[in-house]
Amino acid sequence: MIGVCYYPEHWPESRWAADAGAMAEFGITYVRIGEFAWSRYEPEPGVYDWDWLQRAIDTLAAAGLKVVLGTPTAGPPKWLTDLYPDILPVSADGKVLGHGARRHATVSSQNWLRESRRIVTAMAERFGDHPAVVGWQLDNEIGSDGTAWSYGPADLAAYRQWLRTRYQHIGALNEAWANVFWSMELRSFDEVGLPVGAVWETNPAARLDYWRFSSESLARYIAMQAEIVRAHAPGRFITSNFMSFFHDFDHFDMAKSLDFASWDSYPLGKVQHGPLRPEERARWHDTSHPDFSSFHHDLYRGLRNDRFWIMEHQPGPVNWATHNPVPAPGMVRLWSWEAMAHGCEVLAYFRWRQFPHAQEQMHAGLHRPDNILSPGGKEAKRFADELKALGPLPRPGKAPVALVFDYEAAWVTRIQPQGADFDYRRLVHLWYEAARRLGVDVDVVAPGVPLDGYAAVLVPSLPIVTDTADATFRTTGAHVLFGPRTGSKTRHFGIPETLPPGPLQDLLPIKIIEVASLPPDIGTPVDGGTMRHWREHIELQRPDLVVDRSFADGTPALVRHHRFSYLAGWAEPDLLRATMMDLFERAGIEIIDLPEHIRLRRLGHLQFAFNYGSEPWTIPVSATDPILGSRTVAPHDLSCWSTAASGS
Amino acid sequence: MIGVCYYPEHWPESRWAADAGAMAEFGITYVRIGEFAWSRYEPEPGVYDWDWLQRAIDTLAAAGLKVVLGTPTAGPPKWLTDLYPDILPVSADGKVLGHGARRHATVSSQNWLRESRRIVTAMAERFGDHPAVVGWQLDNEIGSDGTAWSYGPADLAAYRQWLRTRYQHIGALNEAWANVFWSMELRSFDEVGLPVGAVWETNPAARLDYWRFSSESLARYIAMQAEIVRAHAPGRFITSNFMSFFHDFDHFDMAKSLDFASWDSYPLGKVQHGPLRPEERARWHDTSHPDFSSFHHDLYRGLRNDRFWIMEHQPGPVNWATHNPVPAPGMVRLWSWEAMAHGCEVLAYFRWRQFPHAQEQMHAGLHRPDNILSPGGKEAKRFADELKALGPLPRPGKAPVALVFDYEAAWVTRIQPQGADFDYRRLVHLWYEAARRLGVDVDVVAPGVPLDGYAAVLVPSLPIVTDTADATFRTTGAHVLFGPRTGSKTRHFGIPETLPPGPLQDLLPIKIIEVASLPPDIGTPVDGGTMRHWREHIELQRPDLVVDRSFADGTPALVRHHRFSYLAGWAEPDLLRATMMDLFERAGIEIIDLPEHIRLRRLGHLQFAFNYGSEPWTIPVSATDPILGSRTVAPHDLSCWSTAASGS
Amino acid sequence: MIGVCYYPEHWPESRWAADAGAMAEFGITYVRIGEFAWSRYEPEPGVYDWDWLQRAIDTLAAAGLKVVLGTPTAGPPKWLTDLYPDILPVSADGKVLGHGARRHATVSSQNWLRESRRIVTAMAERFGDHPAVVGWQLDNEIGSDGTAWSYGPADLAAYRQWLRTRYQHIGALNEAWANVFWSMELRSFDEVGLPVGAVWETNPAARLDYWRFSSESLARYIAMQAEIVRAHAPGRFITSNFMSFFHDFDHFDMAKSLDFASWDSYPLGKVQHGPLRPEERARWHDTSHPDFSSFHHDLYRGLRNDRFWIMEHQPGPVNWATHNPVPAPGMVRLWSWEAMAHGCEVLAYFRWRQFPHAQEQMHAGLHRPDNILSPGGKEAKRFADELKALGPLPRPGKAPVALVFDYEAAWVTRIQPQGADFDYRRLVHLWYEAARRLGVDVDVVAPGVPLDGYAAVLVPSLPIVTDTADATFRTTGAHVLFGPRTGSKTRHFGIPETLPPGPLQDLLPIKIIEVASLPPDIGTPVDGGTMRHWREHIELQRPDLVVDRSFADGTPALVRHHRFSYLAGWAEPDLLRATMMDLFERAGIEIIDLPEHIRLRRLGHLQFAFNYGSEPWTIPVSATDPILGSRTVAPHDLSCWSTAASGS
Repeated sequence: MIGVCYYPEHWPESRWAADAGAMAEFGITYVRIGEFAWSRYEPEPGVYDWDWLQRAIDTLAAAGLKVVLGTPTAGPPKWLTDLYPDILPVSADGKVLGHGARRHATVSSQNWLRESRRIVTAMAERFGDHPAVVGWQLDNEIGSDGTAWSYGPADLAAYRQWLRTRYQHIGALNEAWANVFWSMELRSFDEVGLPVGAVWETNPAARLDYWRFSSESLARYIAMQAEIVRAHAPGRFITSNFMSFFHDFDHFDMAKSLDFASWDSYPLGKVQHGPLRPEERARWHDTSHPDFSSFHHDLYRGLRNDRFWIMEHQPGPVNWATHNPVPAPGMVRLWSWEAMAHGCEVLAYFRWRQFPHAQEQMHAGLHRPDNILSPGGKEAKRFADELKALGPLPRPGKAPVALVFDYEAAWVTRIQPQGADFDYRRLVHLWYEAARRLGVDVDVVAPGVPLDGYAAVLVPSLPIVTDTADATFRTTGAHVLFGPRTGSKTRHFGIPETLPPGPLQDLLPIKIIEVASLPPDIGTPVDGGTMRHWREHIELQRPDLVVDRSFADGTPALVRHHRFSYLAGWAEPDLLRATMMDLFERAGIEIIDLPEHIRLRRLGHLQFAFNYGSEPWTIPVSATDPILGSRTVAPHDLSCWSTAASGS
Repeated sequence: MIGVCYYPEHWPESRWAADAGAMAEFGITYVRIGEFAWSRYEPEPGVYDWDWLQRAIDTLAAAGLKVVLGTPTAGPPKWLTDLYPDILPVSADGKVLGHGARRHATVSSQNWLRESRRIVTAMAERFGDHPAVVGWQLDNEIGSDGTAWSYGPADLAAYRQWLRTRYQHIGALNEAWANVFWSMELRSFDEVGLPVGAVWETNPAARLDYWRFSSESLARYIAMQAEIVRAHAPGRFITSNFMSFFHDFDHFDMAKSLDFASWDSYPLGKVQHGPLRPEERARWHDTSHPDFSSFHHDLYRGLRNDRFWIMEHQPGPVNWATHNPVPAPGMVRLWSWEAMAHGCEVLAYFRWRQFPHAQEQMHAGLHRPDNILSPGGKEAKRFADELKALGPLPRPGKAPVALVFDYEAAWVTRIQPQGADFDYRRLVHLWYEAARRLGVDVDVVAPGVPLDGYAAVLVPSLPIVTDTADATFRTTGAHVLFGPRTGSKTRHFGIPETLPPGPLQDLLPIKIIEVASLPPDIGTPVDGGTMRHWREHIELQRPDLVVDRSFADGTPALVRHHRFSYLAGWAEPDLLRATMMDLFERAGIEIIDLPEHIRLRRLGHLQFAFNYGSEPWTIPVSATDPILGSRTVAPHDLSCWSTAASGS
Repeated sequence: MIGVCYYPEHWPESRWAADAGAMAEFGITYVRIGEFAWSRYEPEPGVYDWDWLQRAIDTLAAAGLKVVLGTPTAGPPKWLTDLYPDILPVSADGKVLGHGARRHATVSSQNWLRESRRIVTAMAERFGDHPAVVGWQLDNEIGSDGTAWSYGPADLAAYRQWLRTRYQHIGALNEAWANVFWSMELRSFDEVGLPVGAVWETNPAARLDYWRFSSESLARYIAMQAEIVRAHAPGRFITSNFMSFFHDFDHFDMAKSLDFASWDSYPLGKVQHGPLRPEERARWHDTSHPDFSSFHHDLYRGLRNDRFWIMEHQPGPVNWATHNPVPAPGMVRLWSWEAMAHGCEVLAYFRWRQFPHAQEQMHAGLHRPDNILSPGGKEAKRFADELKALGPLPRPGKAPVALVFDYEAAWVTRIQPQGADFDYRRLVHLWYEAARRLGVDVDVVAPGVPLDGYAAVLVPSLPIVTDTADATFRTTGAHVLFGPRTGSKTRHFGIPETLPPGPLQDLLPIKIIEVASLPPDIGTPVDGGTMRHWREHIELQRPDLVVDRSFADGTPALVRHHRFSYLAGWAEPDLLRATMMDLFERAGIEIIDLPEHIRLRRLGHLQFAFNYGSEPWTIPVSATDPILGSRTVAPHDLSCWSTAASGS
């Protein structure tokens, strides 16, 4: 179904009814509102004004629309931070970050926690049982703009308390962090400092714990909001909207408080800021990379209950990337269908009408500021009509392949890249892309999630292998490919006593005895391809290991033991592709060799093909008459047809 | 006429008379002194010592020289800022900027305003009626080194006061800035914060107002000095020296206090720091770009009363650019003549003699530290002799073409570039260059200046079109070419209700319905050339519009309605050239196709040709015997001849 | 002989004896310990625990090992800086740099000086007469990570005191710094500020004095430690460990307190961070540049008593460079032998065993964390065996060529580069490389060291020529080549009255009348090669000067007067090579044309050849049967043979 983001407070009340009517006519079911209107809810401290919001909701409801209400904690008003300055976050270099944008609050502040509870409670009390308010969005893009971390006195106090709880005794902390190194030992938790602002690099174990503390603090903050809303809004769903290529906190952990995850899909902005090389950035500048959105669909679908929404979707050029192209004609519709093909339940466009003022005035909406449908709005309308015509979509089934994604992997490799260009986002992207170029659907799962039912499992990198994760590898019947740095760290950011891959050595009896990070212009040849950035030196612990690929000097690059393989470095696309073809063949997974601009996706009995390029592509298999498009998929277009054997 | 900058305080008094005599002999008429000697004027708080300056002026006067006296407010002494620390400016990231260089004062400080009035009054009282002091320079390169903006408590207080005056009620400010967005609403002017240091981008409307406030504050500061000097120095001229490619405040506004503008011309330094591509930087590294100086001559001539001086001119290598080449032999003379050809009244070299100490010790002078004429000094001497031989020059007449230059355009596009490389400096440079490569003289004018008498008007970009400016377009008989983003913003940094180009839609019935900013490696083909960086999507509002050029997809790139044309993007030189050739042809302006290193300039009956390259160039028209040079203009040389029909 | 760095505090006491035994068996003689264990020496303020260190030393001694004990002042414990926060250094932008890494102390703090005296005294009292403690390392990599400079209140107070002592009267300081410029004059030493944090560039004379003050402060700090240790540890040697490409303080000055210098050799890390072009960085990424280590051997050998140790040597990949490759097989052994060939007395590897925790967990050791010899450890073992077999090595004799290296040259050109890419490190590297490519051995000497006995002297750049240095040039019989900027500054950072090269004009009657710094893509042709970055314009003062090479415009590029030559710019390798060939020929120095990957080194009667490349190289002279290797030096290998005429 289709939704839209709407800001009644931005427009004269006299326009609300007409807007609501037009939304209904457009085919919209859900309207997200309210997440940035605190200054209107509480214009003076303690003085609430909910009536206008009531009228706005009623107006939408009168047009048959359902409302998703946002808690307004992403935008505390100026009087609040003036009243309690300790709410303001502090940057790593010690600057207090002031009012004037959004997210100017640290969840370590007791004042902030109290005020958040107060406003969320007041809102939930007022609107919890409104029949048109069918769900709640907690906060908005929590953690964005670097606010997952704050480094002020309130944060330090909360961090010390967190460490006290975790380690009980300072000796345990000194031991876990190996503080004997460089004379860093502490005599009490009161001596703990923030892991920033030192002369040189601080202890990676301390940094990892700070990131864990921060991630848990954010998750607890959302859980606190969820508890309030649940108490006052029985039967309503609770979600929060996440972002792409954003790993500053553990989303799997936070999602436990939610009924499902939502995410905000801005395909073009991320081409400028995502993990691409310059020539790729140019290649995909007005279409996005074919794997960027779909990866996040698969990731966020896996976050909670196999469900997800797009809470914000790009309808045209945006305002916040270094460059903001107009999407190539067709792409807004293509992206919309692609989301559906990956199981999106509701796709909400951001926003109904471009707001011609303030920070986001250059961000397109479904309508231009003069209330005419924008070019992207027209495509969205076509999508809405097609979607309606097609009727209810099947739910997504299990993919043949699982990719294990881990937030701690992102943290460990950022805290200690060891080579400046080791970017977990890029690594995962390359692995996902390699599988998708072979026409294979992928589920993205957290480490520790049971891997039953998958034919193959991809683990691009998993430095810290927990016991739970370890158990899933031991018990799965899938063929598993592990990537570099897997098993390379203990929980306390040390190197395992038996060397990497640590606990996996039972499955893969090897030791990584040396690692090289290499300047990006140094390619290392391997049978069938190239490694770059990172190379590991493997010592085989048993004679019966299979060496599937070797480096030019004869040392092993890809080793295998039963169903488990280990790739000893950062494989470039050529090598990844060859490696995965072998893997999928062993796993009995059917593959198809796709051009770089074509992707397939199976949704139940429906088969989709998406064309991100400017060349048409003809479906090489016999298909029933397409439901959407034709056998030759036009540029920036898609086709959809029913398969003989209907899906789950 | 010729001038020079001199610092008697740097040299033993015993050398002054000899220096003065040598200046007179050199052909110098004006000597600028005194703008950095506060610590000598007032060695202890309240204790003045003017006698040495009196002797210095008398010595210069005795040699027949005229003195331009500088107020010393660019360099307050250490004791002053120690006494009143709130004088020190504060950077955007909150650092107090200390003593040790220059310009360490914010004009928001009441202490600074009082102390400035005091020292300027004392100086004007003492020297206002000195017969040799014929003019005054107020301050020095005001606003340079980022000091147009300061972000301390004094600045915030002054800003709030400025907003109170401007908006009267906080509701009006909330409305103007659309503070309802992101819950930014304020309850009183006391809640207004500085538009920096937030978690994310602050409101562009607030930033624009801060820049306006800062610009007006600087202008008021100069007006305050002007008032004092006028009161004590009747009949003396008042000027101030500006810089190139510097737009941090509105020079048109500030110039209202002055009799004429001066500017400091450093052609080579700006090749390193100006809006050029790397290959252009290399190409022109020791000659400067042929349009850099002349653009600023034309800009500053237009600032006030059609007059301008060069108060400082580069005589050799300088010290402050990333690289500091020696000018190619001939260029110091060429630049000097070029200034005259553009109407410069007095060209003053910086400085008489290289000072072998402190920050500028590597900055050449007319003389080396050992008092021998430097290579550049020898060229300046030749220029002085030639100038004297030629006799009085005609005053510049009106050019056939006006280019509308706007400081708010610079601010709007810096505050909201929308594409990271949208640089108004570069855009204006390309438009000016395109006209000048066609041999056409250009006047640079402020928006709102009557455009009568021009055959063509160029408006590279004018986001905010004031009523006054709008009126000049409506009433001019000229052919007008508008560039991208013109009319795209309201006075309060919003998008016009009718979409861009807003108020110009009467003249040009189009709407810009979408804009794309594009990575620099993406070129967009247009009939006859290329666009880059920026592309706009035009919706035609009437069927009778002429589409002169189209994009490859058939949509309009250059549209025309009567005498008004609109170019829907950032045109590269090829497209600009073609577009201007058509424009000038329609306007009846004669053009000549010049090589990239040749420029022409008409001054009354005199015609100049300048050769910035290493290849000779032969004047393609029959000319009278050149007054300077020959019909074949040698590399790094110039020619000047009288035209048949004598000028204004 | 061979040493190793060991951290008993990192390992259970139960492992110490086995480790000590293994060290002895490995062939190790010296063990450096203790420099980072303050938190173990003094777990509570004033409560010492030396017993564990006693046991550790006794255990090493029992295995026949000698101990070098490090004072722990690079790592003050948290309680100490909590107790005395003024100990923490302050960055140039005003941030207090906190605990959490190392070197978090400024030697300007009186608290720090007192606490340092206390801990060093306590340690020296306890272990000064331990028979196994044969030497002391003072502090560790002093000044690293930017800590040679601190900008807090304690630093300002100490700086003002230093200036008082140096200048006596504020008038003398104003005169020396030329503070009349920009109204910077001060009325008392209490008005002196830190030379950072101003609006714009501060006075270079002030900055140079701040660097001198900081350098002297560090040297005095080390001298203070040396005095304490000498008093309590009679007969033990005293050293400190320095770094490569590190010029933040004057090492010649500091070394006066030491018996010899040590340095920490990390050949690969410096390829990423040293003065190389990108293509060179790739070329040498896993071997290091052939002149990087040997230059520093020659530099630190010249620091004190013609002796030096390597206190830390890279045994494999490290953790701190942007990229950290594994050394090409053979290189650890090659680098080890190369150090010996340059006169290293003891080479200590860092460290015995990789510590799998905290900041340096990715730094290889001789052993892997699982206590197996690492690949580099195996090469070190081979080196140890070969060294033992070869017996005592001769002491290094005087080289035919001296290169004058000056820390003030590094400071002057960093403070005032004038061209952004003027890097003294690179300039010296190019000069040293040019000589070494000609097979010539080089001594690196301080300015002012007598130059008797050298056939040629290279002075890449020496802006400030002291009287002492001047005298050595006047009295040497060597052929001397001066590079750009030599003699260009007075002691107070002014330009000499007679212009550069100032005091050298007696030897070389020229004046540098203009200098150009040039963007790196501008090459300036000269007879026989190219200049880049920097070009000087020479005025000859006498007709009998020899112009050996000229620029394309005919002006002199290399001039000679008797034995003195001056090269007027930054010569690229082609021009440097040609110039040095001529110089060495005049000086009667035998040269051999080496490929870029081959280097020779004479040590007494031994001749070494080192192959940094992947192509073999055959020694072109008849040699006795090599002692090590063969006449054809294999890739990443070395050869050593005895020469007919045995050395000193």
